[in-house]
Amino acid sequence: MDFALPQELAALEARTSAFVREEILPFETDPRRTAHGPTDDLRRELVAKARAAGLLSPHVAREWGGLGLSHLGKAVVFEAAGYSMLGPVALNIAAPDEGNMHLLAEVASPAQNARFLAPMAVGETRSCFLMTEPHPGAGADPSLMKTTAVREGDHFVVNGVKWLITGAEGAAFAIVMARTVVDGRDVGATMFLTDLPAAGFRIARALDTLDSSFTGGHAEVALENLRVPASDVLGAVGEGFRYAQARLVPARLTHCMRWLGAARRAHDIATDYASRREAFGGTLLSHEGLGFMLADNEIDLHTTRLAIRHAAWLLDQGQKANVESSMVKVFASEAIFRIVDRSLQVLGGLGMTRDTEVERIFRDVRGFRIYDGPSEVHRWNIARRLARGAAVKAMPEGRAA
Amino acid sequence: MDFALPQELAALEARTSAFVREEILPFETDPRRTAHGPTDDLRRELVAKARAAGLLSPHVAREWGGLGLSHLGKAVVFEAAGYSMLGPVALNIAAPDEGNMHLLAEVASPAQNARFLAPMAVGETRSCFLMTEPHPGAGADPSLMKTTAVREGDHFVVNGVKWLITGAEGAAFAIVMARTVVDGRDVGATMFLTDLPAAGFRIARALDTLDSSFTGGHAEVALENLRVPASDVLGAVGEGFRYAQARLVPARLTHCMRWLGAARRAHDIATDYASRREAFGGTLLSHEGLGFMLADNEIDLHTTRLAIRHAAWLLDQGQKANVESSMVKVFASEAIFRIVDRSLQVLGGLGMTRDTEVERIFRDVRGFRIYDGPSEVHRWNIARRLARGAAVKAMPEGRAA
Amino acid sequence: MDFALPQELAALEARTSAFVREEILPFETDPRRTAHGPTDDLRRELVAKARAAGLLSPHVAREWGGLGLSHLGKAVVFEAAGYSMLGPVALNIAAPDEGNMHLLAEVASPAQNARFLAPMAVGETRSCFLMTEPHPGAGADPSLMKTTAVREGDHFVVNGVKWLITGAEGAAFAIVMARTVVDGRDVGATMFLTDLPAAGFRIARALDTLDSSFTGGHAEVALENLRVPASDVLGAVGEGFRYAQARLVPARLTHCMRWLGAARRAHDIATDYASRREAFGGTLLSHEGLGFMLADNEIDLHTTRLAIRHAAWLLDQGQKANVESSMVKVFASEAIFRIVDRSLQVLGGLGMTRDTEVERIFRDVRGFRIYDGPSEVHRWNIARRLARGAAVKAMPEGRAA
Amino acid sequence: MDFALPQELAALEARTSAFVREEILPFETDPRRTAHGPTDDLRRELVAKARAAGLLSPHVAREWGGLGLSHLGKAVVFEAAGYSMLGPVALNIAAPDEGNMHLLAEVASPAQNARFLAPMAVGETRSCFLMTEPHPGAGADPSLMKTTAVREGDHFVVNGVKWLITGAEGAAFAIVMARTVVDGRDVGATMFLTDLPAAGFRIARALDTLDSSFTGGHAEVALENLRVPASDVLGAVGEGFRYAQARLVPARLTHCMRWLGAARRAHDIATDYASRREAFGGTLLSHEGLGFMLADNEIDLHTTRLAIRHAAWLLDQGQKANVESSMVKVFASEAIFRIVDRSLQVLGGLGMTRDTEVERIFRDVRGFRIYDGPSEVHRWNIARRLARGAAVKAMPEGRAA
Repeated sequence: MDFALPQELAALEARTSAFVREEILPFETDPRRTAHGPTDDLRRELVAKARAAGLLSPHVAREWGGLGLSHLGKAVVFEAAGYSMLGPVALNIAAPDEGNMHLLAEVASPAQNARFLAPMAVGETRSCFLMTEPHPGAGADPSLMKTTAVREGDHFVVNGVKWLITGAEGAAFAIVMARTVVDGRDVGATMFLTDLPAAGFRIARALDTLDSSFTGGHAEVALENLRVPASDVLGAVGEGFRYAQARLVPARLTHCMRWLGAARRAHDIATDYASRREAFGGTLLSHEGLGFMLADNEIDLHTTRLAIRHAAWLLDQGQKANVESSMVKVFASEAIFRIVDRSLQVLGGLGMTRDTEVERIFRDVRGFRIYDGPSEVHRWNIARRLARGAAVKAMPEGRAA
Repeated sequence: MDFALPQELAALEARTSAFVREEILPFETDPRRTAHGPTDDLRRELVAKARAAGLLSPHVAREWGGLGLSHLGKAVVFEAAGYSMLGPVALNIAAPDEGNMHLLAEVASPAQNARFLAPMAVGETRSCFLMTEPHPGAGADPSLMKTTAVREGDHFVVNGVKWLITGAEGAAFAIVMARTVVDGRDVGATMFLTDLPAAGFRIARALDTLDSSFTGGHAEVALENLRVPASDVLGAVGEGFRYAQARLVPARLTHCMRWLGAARRAHDIATDYASRREAFGGTLLSHEGLGFMLADNEIDLHTTRLAIRHAAWLLDQGQKANVESSMVKVFASEAIFRIVDRSLQVLGGLGMTRDTEVERIFRDVRGFRIYDGPSEVHRWNIARRLARGAAVKAMPEGRAA
Repeated sequence: MDFALPQELAALEARTSAFVREEILPFETDPRRTAHGPTDDLRRELVAKARAAGLLSPHVAREWGGLGLSHLGKAVVFEAAGYSMLGPVALNIAAPDEGNMHLLAEVASPAQNARFLAPMAVGETRSCFLMTEPHPGAGADPSLMKTTAVREGDHFVVNGVKWLITGAEGAAFAIVMARTVVDGRDVGATMFLTDLPAAGFRIARALDTLDSSFTGGHAEVALENLRVPASDVLGAVGEGFRYAQARLVPARLTHCMRWLGAARRAHDIATDYASRREAFGGTLLSHEGLGFMLADNEIDLHTTRLAIRHAAWLLDQGQKANVESSMVKVFASEAIFRIVDRSLQVLGGLGMTRDTEVERIFRDVRGFRIYDGPSEVHRWNIARRLARGAAVKAMPEGRAA
Repeated sequence: MDFALPQELAALEARTSAFVREEILPFETDPRRTAHGPTDDLRRELVAKARAAGLLSPHVAREWGGLGLSHLGKAVVFEAAGYSMLGPVALNIAAPDEGNMHLLAEVASPAQNARFLAPMAVGETRSCFLMTEPHPGAGADPSLMKTTAVREGDHFVVNGVKWLITGAEGAAFAIVMARTVVDGRDVGATMFLTDLPAAGFRIARALDTLDSSFTGGHAEVALENLRVPASDVLGAVGEGFRYAQARLVPARLTHCMRWLGAARRAHDIATDYASRREAFGGTLLSHEGLGFMLADNEIDLHTTRLAIRHAAWLLDQGQKANVESSMVKVFASEAIFRIVDRSLQVLGGLGMTRDTEVERIFRDVRGFRIYDGPSEVHRWNIARRLARGAAVKAMPEGRAA
């Protein structure tokens, strides 16, 4: 057992941290940060900076121009990048692109990768992932999916409504999930690739949301006879849920990584303020009431980091880590929310204003307890494994229970 | 002891509830709800509706055109009005006006009331209250106040910066708190009345904030040689902190009342959704995981309501209820936040969008744990009373401790 | 609405408080407080003191020698008595006798009351209530009851095992709940009265438990062909569950009342210690870290008291208050546990020892989150009412959800 | 970074687990487990079993007969041993002996080690550590120490009262901490070794405590002119607090390790029961309400284990890990308490009885939030480091705060 970071990874972490603090933080007051996320114009400017710094797409394989980081490597670098909500945008590791790149690399054909992955890997394009549907369709329970893709000759015709689609506005292509019908038979869910804009792919409206840091915001998308050639099926027909699961486990972890960086940022802002601001006879930090809150932040940051790195290491060992990733997701999303909530509280009235970045971080991290499976679904997942578990032998013979 | 509401109060509550549901809720999607609060145009339209319904200014004495409600009466009616964040705007009982009307009625001269209170009591004007200052001035600790008012002949000349000033934009007048200097001597804090606009009263900027339901938003205000005639001193010179405290105790409670209504609204939206939305083999509400969250909401709503009404009743008995109002403020602000946070969680992705009112309520109620004294200051206030308390006799002779 | 206590009730509260502090607290170090509760010898001595003070059986109707308190009256007096864990023993208001007296007064025949209620009402006898069974019988879910009573002529023959039976050791009589079979047909659960000792009623063993304040402790009881004459059926055959529910709602509340007193005691001991004990440059109470904990105690005590009195008042109005009593039970049992847990923490190492009463209170109140229905069952009860609730109208037309 | 256990350590863990389950669990119902801990007779029997299994004193250097485990090794093996509260007794790794052996190995002279450490390392003797004093002496704040050692010729004469002294009854020797006076001058605290029994060392009384798993229980000890030759000073005069700190950091961690095992045990008992017990139409585990509680247990167990192993690894790297051990202590003691509390709740009424081991674990782990520094002292320690911390640079120029 060894908790030390490899030297080159520690160096990359330091380089990423310095980059974010020196080059990215100044953009946080840029008016191109809108209620629907940073504009594409801002995105390109940030990407160019990361490219110049040699930090672009660190998660992508070297053959596609990235740094080929392991999952553990991502845990370290993504946290450093997440120190600014704009950091992941700059490094091209934000959701949903980061997960989509991972998925393509795992599943797509060489031709598809040349067409879709290659330009995205170098930060030229963005993408979106269409799974969630409005009530009464697929939310946390994907089995309720209402969108259908009907095979017609060498095409599929897709119809349905998707919702909360991050980055749809401005995306160069989409991955669309639909319940698939071939010869009148439901053959399960399939993933389809489609260039954008496309006939039959209509952004019905931009959603106003609590969060505001995803490029392109979140949209409702109407799929109206969207035609997809069979050659643009991603992977195999009927395998959509399996791929979605394969995408989700690491994607869930990368959320943890990035948002841990954001939580650290909120904590640093609060600590800095608490060490300068005077009230009732001393600095805020000299008051136990607030000092304890910041101490709890330290504990939450520390344990969250350990749990994330451990789960990433499991993936690097080739394990599925399904339940471990559920555990980390619940723990991290709730710890991160607590950290940011405490940080805002320490800032008092200032915390309610956009004069510090904490206000925006607070709005963004609230979603993390819901996105990629709400805490409740993951807790249930963990409980079910317990129920399946082999009988334990916790009591010697002769005890009553 | 009697927990039954008087019949006429129950009737007024029912009337207010019906008014809010039928006449005010439809305005919640009105585009005049901006990031800096409802516009004055929207406010006037809402006020006209409440006036027509005979529900305007229920807290104001009948001589000024109100319904002359007791504190307990306010507890009931304000909660009903708070069911929409626009309800208090319509009834003219929103902060800071509601507290300012209370303060004027208690302290102002007849001439001042004719000039300032009368038009506000009938919903024609708005006001603001300038106490909080940016770092390193007066925040939770008012003793740090930096703004000064220097007596020059029959005027006071006020200089300083105020911050987080709710409703400053568009207010007809302001109550300004300043450390007062007479003949070179600091004589304590004083409250000053000043019509707006005024030379020397400059809105430096509108603050972007997490919340968005106060008319006029929150501003930073620069006071630059603002001249106030001595006749516009509110009450007596040097009594500002005493008046502020007298304003704060009931104002803190009315926040609890209004926001309890908002919490109930969030809970109703979540319950309604959970009883219709299906996932994993049943409605959300049929799943214990979510059912328990909504049960906890019910418990929080119930106990918060009891605590608020009890504290209001104490004020009606002529008690100061300083510590009781601190207890209720901490309990209510934290319970209300829990309720709204759980409601948002129950809604899942939908909760993150402005498609329901919960998103806005969530942003607004977060401030309540900070405004009118952060929880930490109130907890300290309660602890100090314990420290002052007469020695208890909790142990018989002969026990060790 | 009126939160003031009637004068005579306030006087009775004061008298009870003084009695407990002066006469009962000194017995807390009495060695007759065993791991299985106070001995009957100690109980009789305490009862004699309450009798002399005119405070015995305040909940019992005057015709049976009590003070005829309303539910609200009980809320006040039981809390005062609970300030010592021995107080309810002295006043003859401890579980399960207090609930049994209530049940008998409601359901029993005059002859049964003369035989069973009369001597218990004056503190001469104790009783027990046999409902809970060991796994896999009736626990929180009474429908799993395994004990049977088979009608044979003018007798019922009862067989089964009961468990966690409070006060069985030393009880003068028992109320036994059994699934009833008449002419080979299950006719539902019935309650039976039986004098003790009785053939066929065997105390299999005394249970060692976390708590230690119930006279007679908790036992496992084997019912082996216990014969009960039909005339000793309590109420009607087949009505057992209905009576149990009728017993439970007020019994649950009286638990809240007594244990609130115990929580206050723990808080007073901790506060007293924290105001005297010095560490790190001041009294413990002068440290915000501990001050905040005691402030939270004050808030929990205050809100719990209000919620209990409200529910008691509802019962006095003739309401069933099923859900309200569930809400109060969850809230009170969890708040009380928090209070005592914090009190123990404030005491530090001292809290771990029996040198103060807090150690015993901590062990006892832990059970309250389980006894009379665990929190989880009550939360589910509350959620189910929500599910049954008429559709709310929380959103105006035109909102998305 | 590598989270895999070395193979030989994994093998030792498996061997320890099997030993505890097969050989130690059956002793849990042994009547020699008294309210003041296991008797010495039982202890010797358990130690003999561990000796036979080759598992005795795994923390002790090989030269003294142990297995020479690293801190990380201890983290793994102590958790496995802690699965029964009797496991650490058997392996000779219980407090306070385990910490005392560590301290002696670090500080004592060869002659002292031959006399004190050697017999203890092979499980023949026990020891105690006298630091804590009753009010108003040294509790969480050691600077309040009242016990004095006055140099008289070649002896020190010690006077004072010590309290909550674990294992004093039956110990073969004691380490006594006293404020030292040489030539009338206070030269700081010193540690003294003294064989027991000794004139001037009187066990004033055995303390009744919530916990019950420490051999010898906890005692109050009167030091009345206890004479200690100068040659029995442990280490150097005046260095007592420094040694105490050096003892405490690893001792605090070993508490975490052992109690993590106990928490896992409670969780296993609860999970086992929940997977068998039926109520309301399914097993307890099939109900989300309880399933979520057990899921939270899994998360707490997992994150606590990671945090402990990380801190142990830091010590193995030669770091002081002062703040990290504070963080782990707070996190572990609170997580472990939550786990056991939830386990007890899942068991319902059964959890309140000694029919499972959970009741005893619950009582024991409550102390862990207090022993070795209460959570509040550690939180303050963490906050103070933040206050000392170099200024962070969390905000770019131009932001307001």
